[in-house]
Amino acid sequence: MATILVINGPNLNMLGRREPEIYGTETLSDVIEGLLELADEYNVRLFDFQSNAEHEIVERIHQAMDDGTNYIIINPAAFTHTSVAIRDALATINVPFIEVHLSNIHKREAFRSHSYFSDLADGVIAGLGTKGYQLAFEAAIDKLED
Amino acid sequence: MATILVINGPNLNMLGRREPEIYGTETLSDVIEGLLELADEYNVRLFDFQSNAEHEIVERIHQAMDDGTNYIIINPAAFTHTSVAIRDALATINVPFIEVHLSNIHKREAFRSHSYFSDLADGVIAGLGTKGYQLAFEAAIDKLED
Amino acid sequence: MATILVINGPNLNMLGRREPEIYGTETLSDVIEGLLELADEYNVRLFDFQSNAEHEIVERIHQAMDDGTNYIIINPAAFTHTSVAIRDALATINVPFIEVHLSNIHKREAFRSHSYFSDLADGVIAGLGTKGYQLAFEAAIDKLED
Amino acid sequence: MATILVINGPNLNMLGRREPEIYGTETLSDVIEGLLELADEYNVRLFDFQSNAEHEIVERIHQAMDDGTNYIIINPAAFTHTSVAIRDALATINVPFIEVHLSNIHKREAFRSHSYFSDLADGVIAGLGTKGYQLAFEAAIDKLED
Amino acid sequence: MATILVINGPNLNMLGRREPEIYGTETLSDVIEGLLELADEYNVRLFDFQSNAEHEIVERIHQAMDDGTNYIIINPAAFTHTSVAIRDALATINVPFIEVHLSNIHKREAFRSHSYFSDLADGVIAGLGTKGYQLAFEAAIDKLED
Amino acid sequence: MATILVINGPNLNMLGRREPEIYGTETLSDVIEGLLELADEYNVRLFDFQSNAEHEIVERIHQAMDDGTNYIIINPAAFTHTSVAIRDALATINVPFIEVHLSNIHKREAFRSHSYFSDLADGVIAGLGTKGYQLAFEAAIDKLED
Amino acid sequence: MATILVINGPNLNMLGRREPEIYGTETLSDVIEGLLELADEYNVRLFDFQSNAEHEIVERIHQAMDDGTNYIIINPAAFTHTSVAIRDALATINVPFIEVHLSNIHKREAFRSHSYFSDLADGVIAGLGTKGYQLAFEAAIDKLED
Amino acid sequence: MATILVINGPNLNMLGRREPEIYGTETLSDVIEGLLELADEYNVRLFDFQSNAEHEIVERIHQAMDDGTNYIIINPAAFTHTSVAIRDALATINVPFIEVHLSNIHKREAFRSHSYFSDLADGVIAGLGTKGYQLAFEAAIDKLED
Amino acid sequence: MATILVINGPNLNMLGRREPEIYGTETLSDVIEGLLELADEYNVRLFDFQSNAEHEIVERIHQAMDDGTNYIIINPAAFTHTSVAIRDALATINVPFIEVHLSNIHKREAFRSHSYFSDLADGVIAGLGTKGYQLAFEAAIDKLED
Amino acid sequence: MATILVINGPNLNMLGRREPEIYGTETLSDVIEGLLELADEYNVRLFDFQSNAEHEIVERIHQAMDDGTNYIIINPAAFTHTSVAIRDALATINVPFIEVHLSNIHKREAFRSHSYFSDLADGVIAGLGTKGYQLAFEAAIDKLED
Amino acid sequence: MATILVINGPNLNMLGRREPEIYGTETLSDVIEGLLELADEYNVRLFDFQSNAEHEIVERIHQAMDDGTNYIIINPAAFTHTSVAIRDALATINVPFIEVHLSNIHKREAFRSHSYFSDLADGVIAGLGTKGYQLAFEAAIDKLED
Amino acid sequence: MATILVINGPNLNMLGRREPEIYGTETLSDVIEGLLELADEYNVRLFDFQSNAEHEIVERIHQAMDDGTNYIIINPAAFTHTSVAIRDALATINVPFIEVHLSNIHKREAFRSHSYFSDLADGVIAGLGTKGYQLAFEAAIDKLED
Repeated sequence: MATILVINGPNLNMLGRREPEIYGTETLSDVIEGLLELADEYNVRLFDFQSNAEHEIVERIHQAMDDGTNYIIINPAAFTHTSVAIRDALATINVPFIEVHLSNIHKREAFRSHSYFSDLADGVIAGLGTKGYQLAFEAAIDKLED
Repeated sequence: MATILVINGPNLNMLGRREPEIYGTETLSDVIEGLLELADEYNVRLFDFQSNAEHEIVERIHQAMDDGTNYIIINPAAFTHTSVAIRDALATINVPFIEVHLSNIHKREAFRSHSYFSDLADGVIAGLGTKGYQLAFEAAIDKLED
Repeated sequence: MATILVINGPNLNMLGRREPEIYGTETLSDVIEGLLELADEYNVRLFDFQSNAEHEIVERIHQAMDDGTNYIIINPAAFTHTSVAIRDALATINVPFIEVHLSNIHKREAFRSHSYFSDLADGVIAGLGTKGYQLAFEAAIDKLED
Repeated sequence: MATILVINGPNLNMLGRREPEIYGTETLSDVIEGLLELADEYNVRLFDFQSNAEHEIVERIHQAMDDGTNYIIINPAAFTHTSVAIRDALATINVPFIEVHLSNIHKREAFRSHSYFSDLADGVIAGLGTKGYQLAFEAAIDKLED
Repeated sequence: MATILVINGPNLNMLGRREPEIYGTETLSDVIEGLLELADEYNVRLFDFQSNAEHEIVERIHQAMDDGTNYIIINPAAFTHTSVAIRDALATINVPFIEVHLSNIHKREAFRSHSYFSDLADGVIAGLGTKGYQLAFEAAIDKLED
Repeated sequence: MATILVINGPNLNMLGRREPEIYGTETLSDVIEGLLELADEYNVRLFDFQSNAEHEIVERIHQAMDDGTNYIIINPAAFTHTSVAIRDALATINVPFIEVHLSNIHKREAFRSHSYFSDLADGVIAGLGTKGYQLAFEAAIDKLED
Repeated sequence: MATILVINGPNLNMLGRREPEIYGTETLSDVIEGLLELADEYNVRLFDFQSNAEHEIVERIHQAMDDGTNYIIINPAAFTHTSVAIRDALATINVPFIEVHLSNIHKREAFRSHSYFSDLADGVIAGLGTKGYQLAFEAAIDKLED
Repeated sequence: MATILVINGPNLNMLGRREPEIYGTETLSDVIEGLLELADEYNVRLFDFQSNAEHEIVERIHQAMDDGTNYIIINPAAFTHTSVAIRDALATINVPFIEVHLSNIHKREAFRSHSYFSDLADGVIAGLGTKGYQLAFEAAIDKLED
Repeated sequence: MATILVINGPNLNMLGRREPEIYGTETLSDVIEGLLELADEYNVRLFDFQSNAEHEIVERIHQAMDDGTNYIIINPAAFTHTSVAIRDALATINVPFIEVHLSNIHKREAFRSHSYFSDLADGVIAGLGTKGYQLAFEAAIDKLED
Repeated sequence: MATILVINGPNLNMLGRREPEIYGTETLSDVIEGLLELADEYNVRLFDFQSNAEHEIVERIHQAMDDGTNYIIINPAAFTHTSVAIRDALATINVPFIEVHLSNIHKREAFRSHSYFSDLADGVIAGLGTKGYQLAFEAAIDKLED
Repeated sequence: MATILVINGPNLNMLGRREPEIYGTETLSDVIEGLLELADEYNVRLFDFQSNAEHEIVERIHQAMDDGTNYIIINPAAFTHTSVAIRDALATINVPFIEVHLSNIHKREAFRSHSYFSDLADGVIAGLGTKGYQLAFEAAIDKLED
Repeated sequence: MATILVINGPNLNMLGRREPEIYGTETLSDVIEGLLELADEYNVRLFDFQSNAEHEIVERIHQAMDDGTNYIIINPAAFTHTSVAIRDALATINVPFIEVHLSNIHKREAFRSHSYFSDLADGVIAGLGTKGYQLAFEAAIDKLED
């Protein structure tokens, strides 16, 4: 049974928590729930992990060497632009991954156009909101079936 | 009835035409056929257009002002990095679009990391092969339903 | 009898075609008509040419070697920033020219601040809308009378 | 009655004063005289001001808040590339302006390709000699009539 | 009753702890005590928080959404130059803040001249030692009274 | 008796003179009056000087060598980014100074992020409006008492 | 029988057409004729193609997959510096090629020092005029005989 | 008795844990054990510390002010390129240190060529694998004996 | 009778005025006196001019067109790095000049390594203190005698 | 009788000396022999010179002023990227030259894309192995016959 | 019997020759003597070579192809930053090497942070004084024993 | 008795040897003779040295430690831009020096604007032809008399 790990970086625990009339009421829990349903449908196991701490994400990735993870979907959020440690952790365990961004990082500050992950990733999905996680999930399934 | 236009840039007419044992036998026609089936399923109209000529793509985009196109999926291929004219055409007609790349442009030559399209796009999907078109299609449906 | 050639680059065929309540209803035809009246008044011949295709502009410029053109007014639009071929065509035929831009390119994206034409041009007029063509025409007359 | 202020920066008081067989005999006074005739014709008031001192230009611009100036034509000359103070003065009084250069700054030293004025200006006219002032005047009239 | 949160980044727990004959004996506690007295005087509530861990600062900022914080004074120390996560946390909760630096960062290594916070801050105070916190406090009071 | 000199650069004479409903009605005179009251309170002498001319500021700084000035508060305004002459004057007389900016220069055009003064200053205060002068005054008092 | 394809980019159709007293009277036809004689001598087939249109060159290269072309000699002219599409076409068909330039691009504008072709080419010959084509032909023969 | 502290950054806990047929079976524990033997031989005390968390390394360095540490050997791993906080911690305690890298960082991605530590370090040893720690230990002994 | 004009820029009026035990007691007057003696000896006329105001230097240079000046020795001081206006004045009057700097600008801040004058000057003398003026004088005599 | 000088830079004495099964057995002597035969055939004199020492090449070039050299073929090898002295020697004697590289320098390290010779050369031939010398010889003959 | 070659670049012949009270009295001979003792101890042959001439180092490296050298320890000194020729020589003979620097090049001028050797080296040791040679020797032994 | 060493770099042995009608007939010997006369007059010893070889210059500088040299005048010619070895030699012997250039390096190729010597030199004299040596000599005398 294939296993997919979904990792979310800093500040994503706040998703949907404020100004719901503007940003919508979808929380990270809602997103994960939706992915769990998809996992059920496709008969794969899905782990999820959110942390604001770089080292916790590094160590969660290390743990993926031993828990049967076959694919990772990661939204590194702010760590996209600053964390060589998470990059190195992903390179260490050598599990393929897709990088997801809720917003279109190309429409934002110039420093967001550089990612420490993209050149290691199988692919990148950006700007498509929470829908991006579902698309990444489908792509992961596709890759696993190759 | 919603209408989605799929545009493919230069050299994509060669997809699947050579070294099939390596690159697979899926041609651009196969990709489009798959999308047409999806369109059927979701009850939307789908136009497709491929050209190696920048001006033909510019003019196809102009035409989208009059043919009811609601959303564009575009793989500008080499024009990603060189065509301000297509960028301007998209800005002129003001139809939302998603940018798709078959390969992960972040793993390739440095000049491929700049796109004239990404900061105008709703989103970007890269590195997920022909699966990327299906994901873009789903995201487009999602956006149209908002 | 002096001859002036007016060249317009990609997307300028759309001028005045959309959101007339915002951008006005003046089309490229209107602009050209105005210039033809001026040409009449000043007793010069005026050719005009618009194309979305780089090679058609290159070839129209080549043709200017044989059709008596003494001066060129060119709005390269998107090709301003990308076309060495049109630059080379202008250098080949060695007819003096003025570069015109409808919008003030210095208020827009950073990549618009570089032009492949300005260092070869007699002069540059930017940001003055369709009036810019009339001013360029007057300047051309002035240069031809020197 | 509309009022246009024409400002000329450093060294322009020398225009036409030397090597007249080469640079022509047209002085800044001649240019201003020509503009005054145009002003008469179009029934607008025209003020002119030349200074080699940055602060005098700054203060002349301040004064334009109280003397009814509706439009400014400015050739900042060397200050184009060095004066944030004049830029700020123009932004302070918020009167629209056109930037004029006698020579084509794109054919000269690289440092001349940056202007502290262009992104605030309505438009820019460069390389068309003293004719450029007349064109700017016409464009100003056009803008004032909008 | 207005609430001000004072956040101090990494290594600031060492303030005053070493070579007191050189750097003075004022510790971070002393600084905070001084601010608490000011808070008393101005009748505002003051929270303080120091951490060497980026994620703890991110989460303390999240908490500020619920604890009535109206203004933040932050000395991000080393995180000034490296933490997009704290930047994003501040942007998420949307509470105004002032950035404080003990030393004049413009006199130090070149990398210290870039801050991930300054363009989001109300203001920046640098180089004025521990006095900078008091000035930031006064400015915060001023802003809250606007 | 300690003496503080307050210097204001170009365009600051316009403070509060226009659009008072937007920018407030506080003029530079009001700011100086407030500082004079503070000076009275702290029993220090306060000189103030505003000029739009770089050389007048240079020479006022020279004069500070002979008039007993112990500390300078300077808002160089536009000269922040362009005047090596004022920088050199400050280095020549070797009186310590604080640099003040009304607006947050980090939120504005990129060229405003470089200052010819910050690496020589004791400290920098930016973005806190006219309050910034009072804070600088307090910091100056603090430094003088060291 | 080996087949060599000679491709010439934009403006090369004008070769020898103007100022023959200066640039010589050798036209592109003359060059091709010379190469055909060489081809005869060496018993290889030679195709030639000139176009001012990027897409026609792209498509001519595609066609080389099916017409037995073993080697390409290409003078991309202005497209040297702007066409990723032709670069990609050459990479797609994977036929070895030599890049030829009539003029010494290192003596000209700075933008001409970058080529989108050189890092894919077998070799580069620049600055040797029309002789460069003959040398490229000989080198191609040499490579084919390896 | 001299005391040496050995600090290892993120992902180094994984050393030797995977693909031992390729990377060898030497773990970080093995490395430390080897160093402890050397310490014994040279009669110095040796502390070791590994963490994936930046703040834990910062705080371990703070602690070195009080535990008698005379010299530090640090392999900052990914933090080499991103942690100003650890740099500042080392500068705060002012204990001399040598920077060690297992791999030759000059053969890897360009971003690895910048270190926030090298300009503060006594020396740098890179590319010599786990042997590098022993060499650093010997150099530390040498420095302590000076 | 040959005429040499010596121009000194901002802050040079302070030369020798402060900390004479350190910087020496030689004032600008002393320097000029020395040059006048030399002028006497070589039988040339010598004008001198110092100003802290850019426009006064510009206008003094203009005046040199009419007062028989054959050669200029200029120490632009801070204006070296900021004044295009003085550069343009020198280019306008077309009198040859030598650029002198008291200090070695290559040992100082990076921004001092760029001069707006050097590429127009006959030569540059830097770092040789007030002796540099005498050397420039001799070189000027030499050039005038050619 | 025309004279051609062939100069080879550092490490080229090793050509063909190692791993002949990979790099071929052609030595520099073989290359020179081939060129001597060509020289015979075309009835020109050919000198050859190889050195690993920059100054020996500089002095060999000086000597070419007196030995009747009409044309130089130079493969500066590593000196391509580092020797201004050889560049200056070539400029001093003013004999036309062609620059040859065995390998395609555009496929190698980035620093190899800059040459101190190309902008002075008649032409450049790169990437065509030892054949490049023969082509350069033919081009030289062609130039000499002009 | 393994053979190690130690190469020292320009100015290293001066080591210990001046200001011995400051820099110590250890000369290059002393360093080499120490290494010879180590070589004896480890039963390897050690050659040493110092030269101020780039070409002599190039040729000494060539000679290493024939004299049984298995490993090179090189301190290229000033040539670190300027010699592509020595880099190419090392690449030609393909003997592994370690790069040594006496001083910490990261604490010195910016141009010293680039080395033409590091990306080819097995490893780099910098800043550890003459001890660095011994460490390099040990590392070489270690590598030879692998 | 003071001793001055004059060093001339590559290609300067050619001075005056060619096109005397253009460049004059003054050779390097003439220049040295003139300096010897000056030396006589000022009663100092003068050594001169010219070489096209970097290592010979490095070693001549080393020798200056033992031959009583008090001051060096160096025209590094092409080595100005490429020789760290000569820079290091000058820093090693710690004898003060003046850098001389015959031509104005600021009017030439961009790479000539960087010197590896200027930031170590007492002063720099450029663009004043052979007169520059005499001026440097006088400045050296002046420095020696301080």
